[in-house]
Amino acid sequence: MRVILVIGAGRSASSLIQYLLNKSIEEDLHLVIGDLSLDLAKKKINKHPNATAMALDIFDANQRKEAIQKADIVISMLPAHLHIEVARDCVAYKKNMVTASYISDEMQELDAVVKENNLIFMNEIGLDPGIDHMSAMKVIDSIRDKGGKMLLFESFCGGLVAPESDNNLWNYKFTWAPRNVVLAGQGGCAKFIQEGTYKYIPYCNLFRRTEFLEVEGYGRFEAYSNRDSLKYKNVYGLDDVLTLYRGTIRRVGFSKAWNMFVQLGMTDDSYVMEDSENMSYRQFVNSFLPYHPTDSVEIKTRLILKIDQDDIMWDKLLELDLFNDTKMVGLRNASPAQILEKILSESWALQANDKDMIVMYHKFGYELDGVKKQIDSKMVCIGDDQTYTAMAKTVGLPVAMATLQILNGKIKTPGVQLPIKKEVYLPILKELEEYGVVFKEQSMPYLGYNPDKIFC
Amino acid sequence: MRVILVIGAGRSASSLIQYLLNKSIEEDLHLVIGDLSLDLAKKKINKHPNATAMALDIFDANQRKEAIQKADIVISMLPAHLHIEVARDCVAYKKNMVTASYISDEMQELDAVVKENNLIFMNEIGLDPGIDHMSAMKVIDSIRDKGGKMLLFESFCGGLVAPESDNNLWNYKFTWAPRNVVLAGQGGCAKFIQEGTYKYIPYCNLFRRTEFLEVEGYGRFEAYSNRDSLKYKNVYGLDDVLTLYRGTIRRVGFSKAWNMFVQLGMTDDSYVMEDSENMSYRQFVNSFLPYHPTDSVEIKTRLILKIDQDDIMWDKLLELDLFNDTKMVGLRNASPAQILEKILSESWALQANDKDMIVMYHKFGYELDGVKKQIDSKMVCIGDDQTYTAMAKTVGLPVAMATLQILNGKIKTPGVQLPIKKEVYLPILKELEEYGVVFKEQSMPYLGYNPDKIFC
Repeated sequence: MRVILVIGAGRSASSLIQYLLNKSIEEDLHLVIGDLSLDLAKKKINKHPNATAMALDIFDANQRKEAIQKADIVISMLPAHLHIEVARDCVAYKKNMVTASYISDEMQELDAVVKENNLIFMNEIGLDPGIDHMSAMKVIDSIRDKGGKMLLFESFCGGLVAPESDNNLWNYKFTWAPRNVVLAGQGGCAKFIQEGTYKYIPYCNLFRRTEFLEVEGYGRFEAYSNRDSLKYKNVYGLDDVLTLYRGTIRRVGFSKAWNMFVQLGMTDDSYVMEDSENMSYRQFVNSFLPYHPTDSVEIKTRLILKIDQDDIMWDKLLELDLFNDTKMVGLRNASPAQILEKILSESWALQANDKDMIVMYHKFGYELDGVKKQIDSKMVCIGDDQTYTAMAKTVGLPVAMATLQILNGKIKTPGVQLPIKKEVYLPILKELEEYGVVFKEQSMPYLGYNPDKIFC
Repeated sequence: MRVILVIGAGRSASSLIQYLLNKSIEEDLHLVIGDLSLDLAKKKINKHPNATAMALDIFDANQRKEAIQKADIVISMLPAHLHIEVARDCVAYKKNMVTASYISDEMQELDAVVKENNLIFMNEIGLDPGIDHMSAMKVIDSIRDKGGKMLLFESFCGGLVAPESDNNLWNYKFTWAPRNVVLAGQGGCAKFIQEGTYKYIPYCNLFRRTEFLEVEGYGRFEAYSNRDSLKYKNVYGLDDVLTLYRGTIRRVGFSKAWNMFVQLGMTDDSYVMEDSENMSYRQFVNSFLPYHPTDSVEIKTRLILKIDQDDIMWDKLLELDLFNDTKMVGLRNASPAQILEKILSESWALQANDKDMIVMYHKFGYELDGVKKQIDSKMVCIGDDQTYTAMAKTVGLPVAMATLQILNGKIKTPGVQLPIKKEVYLPILKELEEYGVVFKEQSMPYLGYNPDKIFC
């Protein structure tokens, strides 16, 4: 039996573990699921004969090293900053390793020793990063193989609520870490390239500079810019590209409404609010409004946001029960962002029968034989339930598939890497289709970065 | 002769040195003016017999210690972070010291040893901080001496261009460090108290939440909130006050127009723009606008800012020549804020005959014998010329006066301190009146924080 050690049995590990358990007999696998919570690990294996649950504290070096030593390959589903200790042990005991996280500088530094030992440390092989790399490189490589030259690459991804569970005015529920949603776009200017020109969007305008995206069968979406578009230049070999843009997908209207929180200052995580614990939701809102001897919090809110009471934006705020004067924040020394996250979590929690949805959308502009062309590639994945969510599937399945491919010697190239080689992405993208992760590619005339489709 | 060592002969030292030279015969003073630039030091003393200019490098410890040892009192007009070495030498050689800067933590730590040696380290005795402390404490102490209880304290200050030199659409010129003007309000949320409630304004809304102020003979001004209002609670003993607010004064319309730069992202100092050196002003603006195949930079700017071409806001942008495609930025690896500062400096430089203006405005609300009352205290100071500016006068004269008072034993209390004691502020405020720095106080009914004067 080949032993696979999975460290971390959280939400994103469900589909990963299910996939490997389903393959365990034909592939002769034994899974060891290690988590700080033994109960969580046990729950994930559901008494499967080919799996063992263990209480694993990765800060206990002896325990961690022992578990890694016994494994044939290690999957780390820990928070990104915790991979490095596992990685160092994997070098020491000559074990291959898989993560769904961005390659950190520390991880990258291991590349030489990983190669020396002929090991494979596969990273960024979840959804985003992961499926985005693979599905983009598949099209980019096919364009280049024909002799085409890349002109434009735009890539969008979003974790949303499935249409059948989409029943609030924001068309949004938290399907992943709410804190990351509240802090999205902070900590730096969004930078990208449009038609050869570097462009910059400050946080205060980020949610007003959206683009529309149409996905057949699912209607219209919007996207706001990610901060990190430019780093994909090197990774994908797009140094001469005229347009390079990455964005986050939401349903139309979300960003305009979210901008209300930005403008009021409710997404700020840089300071603690005075006596936050004993503040009502209404007092929280009022902290961001000027004092007025007669105007209500509601009137002041509409005045500062320049909205009328028959504006859908106003209904979106009411739906969150923001003006309730009996609901208390109850968080000590909390930042505005932490308080907002709490308030939103009450309205935006997935319900027992709710399903989530992942949408990914790439645009590829290129020139081939003197003709400019475009390919759009789109993927929508709906979750099965609250355990096997679209997020868990799209993050976990590529990790599981890569693990098995490495174990079976199908992925051969050693080093600290991400899935941009054909050897990796071709079989995995193909297998993902069996699980409902299907990219639909359409060819069309090249418009360049020309959202209004203007010809002049 | 008593020797006064003045370290730093920059713009803010002109009136300071002039004052002390004028007093040098009757007061038996000899001034030593030390600056990195001997020429600058020489220029400031203008061959006066009671003064010596010296080239002084404060990073040369021997030279610095020697100069301090020879002095009877030391004035440091260095940038704030450089005072501490001078202060340590002053302790070692038992010299009194005066600065116009905020008391740093390092400076505060010297308090015990300064007191042990019976020394006086007077800080925050320029304009803001300085005249603001003195003029505020004078009124606050007089209210308390009568048995009154403070309810409200609002304090505003601004460095502006004098009405006779006010000839641009922004009603503004750089009369002090332009970089501080461009970065104003960044680095944290503005916090203050209005009628017992803590209030917070994010940067993106800071320049839209202004208050109007009327100054008889000078018309209407506006003020936006400073970040640091709350620290005055302890300093002024205002722990129970209902309203505590500090703001920066501009002419009406400045903030609304400045907000255009904030919204576009032009005040950001956190990143370097791609190839900033070879960018035209027009390209700089276009970096903050979406790509469009046909719309001009002008049209895109008006569209994103939602202004028409007959809006005065548009004229304000045109006046700065922002859309010029031949004027080049010419700054390597520059941030948006650095580039904006350069562009603004071309339009907002003081001309040879221009005069500057300082405006200060305090509001004091209090309760006395069961009746709520208010006092407003206002000061306007106009500069004489480009050397003896209002800024140089209001920063330098209190420093010079305090120095002489300490030398003459009129200020007696030892320790690291700021000018909030009657011993200090009463004689200095009185003497400042001879130099045109006059506060006009008016009593009025108490309105509380009620800018619209609403009664309900």
